[in-house]
Amino acid sequence: MEREELIIVDDLEKQAWEILKKSIIYYQGRPVGTVATCDASLGDLHHDHCFIRDFASSALLFLIKGKYDIVRNFLEETLKLQPKKSQLDAYTPGQGLIPASFKVVSENGQEYLEADFGEHAIARVTPVDSCLWWVIILYAYVKSTKDISFALQPEFQQGIMLIMELCLATRFEMYPTLLVPDGACMIYRRMGIYGYPLEIQALFYAALRAARKLLICAGDEEIVIGIDNRLPLLRDHIRHHYWIDMKRLNQIYRFKGEEYGESAVNQFNIYPDSIPYANLAIWLPKHGGYLAGNVGPSQLDTRFFALGNMMAIISSLASEQQSQAIMNLIEEQWDDLVGEMPMKICFPAVEKEEYRIFTGCDPRNIPWSYHNGGSWPVLLWSLIAAAQKTGRSYIGKQALEIAQARLSVDHWPEYYDGTRGLLIGKKARRYQTWTVTGFLLAKELMRNPEHLALISFGQFDSENPSQSCEL
Amino acid sequence: MEREELIIVDDLEKQAWEILKKSIIYYQGRPVGTVATCDASLGDLHHDHCFIRDFASSALLFLIKGKYDIVRNFLEETLKLQPKKSQLDAYTPGQGLIPASFKVVSENGQEYLEADFGEHAIARVTPVDSCLWWVIILYAYVKSTKDISFALQPEFQQGIMLIMELCLATRFEMYPTLLVPDGACMIYRRMGIYGYPLEIQALFYAALRAARKLLICAGDEEIVIGIDNRLPLLRDHIRHHYWIDMKRLNQIYRFKGEEYGESAVNQFNIYPDSIPYANLAIWLPKHGGYLAGNVGPSQLDTRFFALGNMMAIISSLASEQQSQAIMNLIEEQWDDLVGEMPMKICFPAVEKEEYRIFTGCDPRNIPWSYHNGGSWPVLLWSLIAAAQKTGRSYIGKQALEIAQARLSVDHWPEYYDGTRGLLIGKKARRYQTWTVTGFLLAKELMRNPEHLALISFGQFDSENPSQSCEL
Repeated sequence: MEREELIIVDDLEKQAWEILKKSIIYYQGRPVGTVATCDASLGDLHHDHCFIRDFASSALLFLIKGKYDIVRNFLEETLKLQPKKSQLDAYTPGQGLIPASFKVVSENGQEYLEADFGEHAIARVTPVDSCLWWVIILYAYVKSTKDISFALQPEFQQGIMLIMELCLATRFEMYPTLLVPDGACMIYRRMGIYGYPLEIQALFYAALRAARKLLICAGDEEIVIGIDNRLPLLRDHIRHHYWIDMKRLNQIYRFKGEEYGESAVNQFNIYPDSIPYANLAIWLPKHGGYLAGNVGPSQLDTRFFALGNMMAIISSLASEQQSQAIMNLIEEQWDDLVGEMPMKICFPAVEKEEYRIFTGCDPRNIPWSYHNGGSWPVLLWSLIAAAQKTGRSYIGKQALEIAQARLSVDHWPEYYDGTRGLLIGKKARRYQTWTVTGFLLAKELMRNPEHLALISFGQFDSENPSQSCEL
Repeated sequence: MEREELIIVDDLEKQAWEILKKSIIYYQGRPVGTVATCDASLGDLHHDHCFIRDFASSALLFLIKGKYDIVRNFLEETLKLQPKKSQLDAYTPGQGLIPASFKVVSENGQEYLEADFGEHAIARVTPVDSCLWWVIILYAYVKSTKDISFALQPEFQQGIMLIMELCLATRFEMYPTLLVPDGACMIYRRMGIYGYPLEIQALFYAALRAARKLLICAGDEEIVIGIDNRLPLLRDHIRHHYWIDMKRLNQIYRFKGEEYGESAVNQFNIYPDSIPYANLAIWLPKHGGYLAGNVGPSQLDTRFFALGNMMAIISSLASEQQSQAIMNLIEEQWDDLVGEMPMKICFPAVEKEEYRIFTGCDPRNIPWSYHNGGSWPVLLWSLIAAAQKTGRSYIGKQALEIAQARLSVDHWPEYYDGTRGLLIGKKARRYQTWTVTGFLLAKELMRNPEHLALISFGQFDSENPSQSCEL
């Protein structure tokens, strides 16, 4: 019986690898990325694109398997697509941006890469997460290959610098967080996540950690000082203002509005009536907590967003205690956050008038579907990584078992719907590459937790930041 | 009878000037600004501050009256408060910012100016409009005094350049509009105007027009090229994507969702169900139209915002035809937009769930109060300026008559409430300086329409932008 199970599981992995291999994009004979999906039947304009955020899980998996060339080629080619010149212009991608996606185009027997900076995307939102993921992937490559010389090449140093300058540039505001429009990350459609969404801030923190190491090795100083200034401010801002647990909820519940001045406790002027405090008080376990989805003027988005919380644990943006509390919450509210398919992209879904206003009546994001409370198998790897980081491998094991019982049977769909993730996503494409890589990467992480080091960071010592080049 | 009315009106102006004189702030013996309100009874922390946006109407009025010194001093002192160094930091105001407000502080017999960049404001939103208003005021000063040498001083040229660099800097996105958080302008509390609110875009356009002239006179080239690139893109973007009239509403109503690619008609992926099309179809007159409050991913805010629409007319951000259509709308929907006190800051108010979500349950912004559908006398001057620009002085006259019958009796309140503006604002301070200056400026503009030139711009000739220094 046990042997039979093992074979089935092996077959599953074999099948998954077959799909992944078919997704590889070749450019001038070299592998450079993976397409978003091999389910061409739906005729989506974008199925032949390699998305930077989608490739992140492919990249980690390839690195773990020692398949360095595709990741190296990906990094080299996407770097070439990064605009290097300041334009003082609009409608052209700005200096430092990494495209959302690219594809190989053939013309008169010549191949070239066509980048998309959001011009072809829904609502044409420029992706902010691309350049952050790019730095994270580059760090993982160097960590995995131990080939620091790759990142020390002048064009790579310049690429990192341009991204850092874009992220750290002088802006109108004074918060350490990044201001973005709605839909600038994995949730790429309007979902009421304009402002300072957690996902972007967590990726920003991870990218700063990654860039710091890659720049220090090159002996760069000025921008490292900028990063060292920002890291503790960003970290403390998120840990304080985004944190929600029973203690904090109690404080917020008793907030006074209309506080002016520097000593204001209710710094963001949050009105308790805007918070679903009654539901939250029941839902929050005694020792659980999480980082809010967003904090802005009179705004505290209390939805739980999975990728932001998982990345906050993995990158040590969350404190150790907070990380444990987030995992406690996931265990206690397993049905809501993991259910029958790990894991919910956000919880709860927005419904009725909130749905109408937050999404602009988006039929793709109806309650408990797609970005609005759908379940995304790609998040499995980040759940497992967070579980390992917090010493809770059993959570990862449990989640993986749930996923592998369904993914293949359902033809590796992009997402699942319903409050428990029991339905295959209403418009889900099959053979979605990051569903496959999410599963395979989860398997590899379970097998060898040391792989976590590719993407994970310890607590940042802001008093005494290390100046040595050690990856 | 007529003579008596004249005296009353003269008395009114005299009274208004008395209040205004009392509001003047002196710093080291020189007048440098005006406080927000002389109604100290309310004990508001901010009543002794001079707000940059509030001072704009004071400045125009002083210039018209030949009182140049206070405006010159204001410009010199606020310029000194502008941070000149790039910080790669957070929690400190960035290079180029102009504070929201300042006040005179005395310590050990020494006076100094204390700037506030939003740290003391509700929800601590950094004002984006301050630096835009600052450039507009500087332009008006030079236009009025004909003293271009004032703006040619190196520190002023640097100040303008820093603001332009902040506005035109490379960002994540590609739209020509400015991305701001909620509450970064006159509506300084959460009101669902995050993203690309019209008010900011209209002030941005006016500031670009003003800065262009001031920089050309100094012979600066590079940044003028940047401005010349941006101006037509910004203008065409607003004129196309923000415009709402019956024809456009019909197009939007029949939009298809989910259009990908460069040829998409529904570029922002607006779902018609999110638009109150039935109400709008009744409300929009045949020859009327207006610029929407905001356009973003799957978002079209169809509320009418007065300051943005008026400034779009005054600065020629709106086309001539659009400007006429906006004035047609104001005439046809007079009760809604002007009512018993010119004029509504926005229309309609958000109510019920929309109120809860848009404002975060802000008790100050309940429906038909304050920013949420309140009436603000300061907007009177911009209505009159727009009326004059479009050759509709009679609209201005009518509005002025309504205002002057009530303002003094009501002790010059900050705002009025109710669907017609019949109630004095629930928390309105009395003797609000910009209520007074809004009225006095309106009077001066009515008396001599030539004053409009201080703040107004003709159509920008993007094919053949003038390179000569002529103000």
